[in-house]
Amino acid sequence: MTREELFENIRRKQSFLCVGLDTDLKKVPKFLVERAEKEAGFDAIFEFNKAIIDATAPYCIAYKPNLAFYEAHGVKGWIAFEKTVSYIREHHPDQFIIADAKRGDIGNTSALYARTFFEEMDVDAVTVAPYMGEDSVTPFLGYNGKWVILLALTSNKGSGDFQQLTVNHEQLTEKPIRLFERVICRSQEWVKTAIPDGEAEGVLMYVVGATQGSAFADIRKLAPDHFLLVPGIGAQGGSLEEVCQYGWNDHCGLIVNSSRAIIYADDSERFAEVAGEKAREVQQQMAAILHDKGVC
Amino acid sequence: MTREELFENIRRKQSFLCVGLDTDLKKVPKFLVERAEKEAGFDAIFEFNKAIIDATAPYCIAYKPNLAFYEAHGVKGWIAFEKTVSYIREHHPDQFIIADAKRGDIGNTSALYARTFFEEMDVDAVTVAPYMGEDSVTPFLGYNGKWVILLALTSNKGSGDFQQLTVNHEQLTEKPIRLFERVICRSQEWVKTAIPDGEAEGVLMYVVGATQGSAFADIRKLAPDHFLLVPGIGAQGGSLEEVCQYGWNDHCGLIVNSSRAIIYADDSERFAEVAGEKAREVQQQMAAILHDKGVC
Repeated sequence: MTREELFENIRRKQSFLCVGLDTDLKKVPKFLVERAEKEAGFDAIFEFNKAIIDATAPYCIAYKPNLAFYEAHGVKGWIAFEKTVSYIREHHPDQFIIADAKRGDIGNTSALYARTFFEEMDVDAVTVAPYMGEDSVTPFLGYNGKWVILLALTSNKGSGDFQQLTVNHEQLTEKPIRLFERVICRSQEWVKTAIPDGEAEGVLMYVVGATQGSAFADIRKLAPDHFLLVPGIGAQGGSLEEVCQYGWNDHCGLIVNSSRAIIYADDSERFAEVAGEKAREVQQQMAAILHDKGVC
Repeated sequence: MTREELFENIRRKQSFLCVGLDTDLKKVPKFLVERAEKEAGFDAIFEFNKAIIDATAPYCIAYKPNLAFYEAHGVKGWIAFEKTVSYIREHHPDQFIIADAKRGDIGNTSALYARTFFEEMDVDAVTVAPYMGEDSVTPFLGYNGKWVILLALTSNKGSGDFQQLTVNHEQLTEKPIRLFERVICRSQEWVKTAIPDGEAEGVLMYVVGATQGSAFADIRKLAPDHFLLVPGIGAQGGSLEEVCQYGWNDHCGLIVNSSRAIIYADDSERFAEVAGEKAREVQQQMAAILHDKGVC
């Protein structure tokens, strides 16, 4: 999916919501787990996802399954992940699928991860950790219509441990920058090297936690045109208004994720319907913001 | 496995070699792939691993399957990974099993990864990426006899991009430190918080690439007693002698990994035998070093 197609979906659906499919069998409605115990072949993870997807699809533009939740069930979880991606592709082809995998390894190994997620799974984007530098990230670049979403400034408490440290800078006369800013600057140079005729904002997004408030303004100085994937709304305490105040750009520039607050809003037979209502509530807030900003 | 048990294995087998099970169907002997195409139920990845393991086990103390190579085959790969871990556990129970996964996510998600690898898979150690800080790493701590192997200074070219940047330091009178040194210092504090009666060197190792030469001496100042997992010997060009010159401690303190140079040394019917010979060559070098150092 191109940057323009993504923006078009945001305008058409009046939403920049991503629903996080962090599907945990300890949190899904009990009747699904019980049915799986009785009925061979009933896949509780996939059935939960399918119902959530059908109920929320009108109100979101992206889905983000976090691989940890699928790997936790070994082979069964991996099957559920593959079925979930295929289901979205077949029934909701306008959705942007993000494999939240936070991968990153030496060059030849990152190349394998890239092939897995982009060729075998056919997701649109993979989250990637930057610690190992250029050759751990560039193998994910250069797949037509596919995206790298690089961790920059995450939503968790530990983001203060390293990401916000001030680091040295070649031009010492310049203002010192923090590690997450360095990640943003350097990664844009990598795109220039890896795809000389490509535009970094068409293949690269950054993860910036909703809990980071005014840091969005600092990030926009370095990445004015990039989409930012924003987790941390809802259970983690981030504010949609604040994110939009500091993080907006002329293409919206934000994909805001909510997982637990939507998918676990109810644990009765009505779980999917309630998830749809919750997603719609967020979409309505987003529609109002898009209208205010003159986008819709 | 405890630190003492690991050291005892090193002394007994006169080896600190880890064999990397980076099993790629494009590189394994063709006859295995052809047999898998003809014979339903023949798992070429697992059969390759099994033969390599049986041939190399006398000469190594650890195995390190890199998850990327298994994920690349989706469900089939995941099954091969599980079977490989079970096979080592059953037939070579003295081997230390490292899941080279380079995971790391917000606290509740890292907790899921930890449960997967330590409870479901029962590996001894997982490699973890430090970028997301304390709450992304501590969920992997506190499993009895299990280890976190934190990326510190990796073997690849991109290790220069962020890991070697000088970062700010609370005590400005002290010498500035680099990011990888900061990761080493901070992570030892995390262990103190997470397991107050534990010793960091009994639960935490660091990845330091064999290509990093004298940086081992800097790391030993900050982590004198920790084991270091050292990739980059062989195909990546690191030197065993240099690693031992700078990285040795009184418990050996090194687990040196070799993948491609051992497992793909031959692609004929004799592949496993040749892999065993290559592993034995490295073990002989290691035995000489252990003898020189007075450990064996």
